[in-house]
Amino acid sequence: MTMAFTRPRGTRDFLPEEMARRRYVEGVMREVFESFGYGEVQTPTFESLELITAKSGEDIRRHLYHFKDKAERDLALRPELTAPVMRLYINELKRSPKPVKVYYIGNCFRYEEPQSGRYREFWQAGVELIGPPHEEAEAEVVALAMATLERLGLEGFEVHIGHIGVLRRILEDGGVREEDQNPVMNAIDKGEEAALKGLLEKLQVPEESRSVLLTILELEGPSREVLGKARALLAGRTGVLEELERFERVLCALGFFGVEGYRVDLGIARGLDYYTGTVFEIYAPRLGAQKQICGGGSYSLTETLGGAPVPTCGFAFGFDRVLLALEAEGRKLGGDKGPKALVVPAGKDLLGEAIRVAASLRKSLPCEVDLMKRKLVKALGYADSRGIPLVVIIGEEELAKGCVLVRDMKTGAQRDVKVEDLGSIKVHE
Amino acid sequence: MTMAFTRPRGTRDFLPEEMARRRYVEGVMREVFESFGYGEVQTPTFESLELITAKSGEDIRRHLYHFKDKAERDLALRPELTAPVMRLYINELKRSPKPVKVYYIGNCFRYEEPQSGRYREFWQAGVELIGPPHEEAEAEVVALAMATLERLGLEGFEVHIGHIGVLRRILEDGGVREEDQNPVMNAIDKGEEAALKGLLEKLQVPEESRSVLLTILELEGPSREVLGKARALLAGRTGVLEELERFERVLCALGFFGVEGYRVDLGIARGLDYYTGTVFEIYAPRLGAQKQICGGGSYSLTETLGGAPVPTCGFAFGFDRVLLALEAEGRKLGGDKGPKALVVPAGKDLLGEAIRVAASLRKSLPCEVDLMKRKLVKALGYADSRGIPLVVIIGEEELAKGCVLVRDMKTGAQRDVKVEDLGSIKVHE
Repeated sequence: MTMAFTRPRGTRDFLPEEMARRRYVEGVMREVFESFGYGEVQTPTFESLELITAKSGEDIRRHLYHFKDKAERDLALRPELTAPVMRLYINELKRSPKPVKVYYIGNCFRYEEPQSGRYREFWQAGVELIGPPHEEAEAEVVALAMATLERLGLEGFEVHIGHIGVLRRILEDGGVREEDQNPVMNAIDKGEEAALKGLLEKLQVPEESRSVLLTILELEGPSREVLGKARALLAGRTGVLEELERFERVLCALGFFGVEGYRVDLGIARGLDYYTGTVFEIYAPRLGAQKQICGGGSYSLTETLGGAPVPTCGFAFGFDRVLLALEAEGRKLGGDKGPKALVVPAGKDLLGEAIRVAASLRKSLPCEVDLMKRKLVKALGYADSRGIPLVVIIGEEELAKGCVLVRDMKTGAQRDVKVEDLGSIKVHE
Repeated sequence: MTMAFTRPRGTRDFLPEEMARRRYVEGVMREVFESFGYGEVQTPTFESLELITAKSGEDIRRHLYHFKDKAERDLALRPELTAPVMRLYINELKRSPKPVKVYYIGNCFRYEEPQSGRYREFWQAGVELIGPPHEEAEAEVVALAMATLERLGLEGFEVHIGHIGVLRRILEDGGVREEDQNPVMNAIDKGEEAALKGLLEKLQVPEESRSVLLTILELEGPSREVLGKARALLAGRTGVLEELERFERVLCALGFFGVEGYRVDLGIARGLDYYTGTVFEIYAPRLGAQKQICGGGSYSLTETLGGAPVPTCGFAFGFDRVLLALEAEGRKLGGDKGPKALVVPAGKDLLGEAIRVAASLRKSLPCEVDLMKRKLVKALGYADSRGIPLVVIIGEEELAKGCVLVRDMKTGAQRDVKVEDLGSIKVHE
């Protein structure tokens, strides 16, 4: 006998119970996204390497699954879905009336050290809102992310909202060119304080700008409080204050959506280079180190991908982590989806009859026929072990009366049921 | 401006309308599979190269996307799902009570020349029934495949059922060892008559066996007729007749499932080496050269993958082709899933009100707010171009009466509706 094969490291097999939970969460996300007017799109699992590396953060580049096809094309398994979806937009939807509102639920791939909540193949679910240049659009995506989690019944989540425009403008005023801003934003995103200070030194950012930036990054708390402190700190810096005002208009629009309870966190920078204005992250603190379940904001990516500039904002849920967070709270995710009845012939020559009865029962209840041709007692044991609530026994005597015997596996109660009444049989759960 | 990126050759982008159709077909398949007691599983997108090449046909091996990860593991994008699902069975489910009934809907990858109905990334949906050694199990998977197509409303499909056991036994009686049978089965599957005759010559198959095999392969037609001819042809060949009888019992069991109208086709061999008994293919003749939409049968794969032997049967739909076949018949696949209402503020300072109204409308109808801040006439044009049936206009005057103005885009009729009554608004489609 050869050694049994195993799945590749960092990947997962999903069994029926878990798949049912995943499909349930997918279904709720779809419904909420569609209720806001978003339509689902799907892109290929791999893209040209060039697209994937066009403007992704350094971090992603190091963790790509990259390969050549038989025509020597450089391809990569997608590490995230925003770049592919924006490519789709440029290729297929750029002439559509605006806004273009799309969503996706799909798998992504990163070659990283597997750990709790981090896999080499993982799922993202997100939206992109393309076209409107207004603050209300940025507010809508935040509101949509929160509405989705609320509909899923997640209770323990924290929304942190910041604004990259404020940070970039402080750097710009400090004489840092756009291309030099990206490593700074990266160091902020990673919380690498020493690296950040080193970079600011190297870029010869004036002491005053440096101090403003480092202080701003620490501001975190309820909206009114943080904005007050930020306004005081930025007094006289007209350019930065304009960005802050833009941010305040986004927060004001969040109120229209009924959103509250978030925290303003000016230290949020996001890992990817293409973010521009409002950015936000959602955490499920129960998940510990891998607590971030959502990230998003407004960004500018189409130019890098060869398209015309267009205002865009969106977010992505870490689908697997949302599921972990819901499970950690003990949420019930959809009902049990297994078969509800097992149809058992009480004799080998009755299997044909059993199959016929199952076919009509199936119109109302998922059911299976005992294809193993077991003795009745063994079949009952199988139903029990699978948690199948009803066993329908097909016997000569009952059939002669046009009946079958229905056994409730929980109570053990048995009763005759007319074959034609099987369609209306109920399961008590 | 850089050149716009395009998707890799042979892959597809799916836009919302097509995705809605795909999700609808997926949903119907899930429902039918589950009604027979099958549960969904999911395996990783890539597997170890060894698993994929363990017993796949020559053909698949040549068309693999194969790559190394950063730890030099040889991996391949899955070209089909039976081997991965059987690996999952061995790793995770082999100790579960039998039968194990699983299904999958997932993407697969083959590096082939793209053509109508053939893509490099394509979808398969299928089931595996693991455990029962009886003919009724083989019959169930055929019946399930047909029930699925019927539920989808496909009318023009043809089911061809054959039996590999019969063919292999003729070869065995002709002195052909198991490992030499596979190339023969491959030539049969491809319909390569010259290659087949050459192989039989090379393997020194006696003239009589050769002639029986070539005649059997041509037998195709209604069950009773073909079986009669086969029985006459095989008179005296006890071993082969035993296989034929086994096949007849499968066909008899098909009757229990109410299945009829299929054709018996002893020329079916299937491309993969692991098939053993009943095999079947379903064609949608409207699709021309790529008309096969389903293939399956009973097979033996676990030993090759390092597990204990276990009787198995299953099938896989070519998901994309099922969709093409349904579209070719003009089937309506699910309803229109776009937003049903556009909420438009009749003045810039009313956008906040519009967002609030949309939030309550959304509880019953998918809707979007005009985030572009367009003038009313332009917003109506947008609703028209997107096929949004209702426009809800938020005006000062109406709001003062606790109302909004609802415009039916088809008739142009407008009426005042109380904000609190918006939840019960209907769309006439």
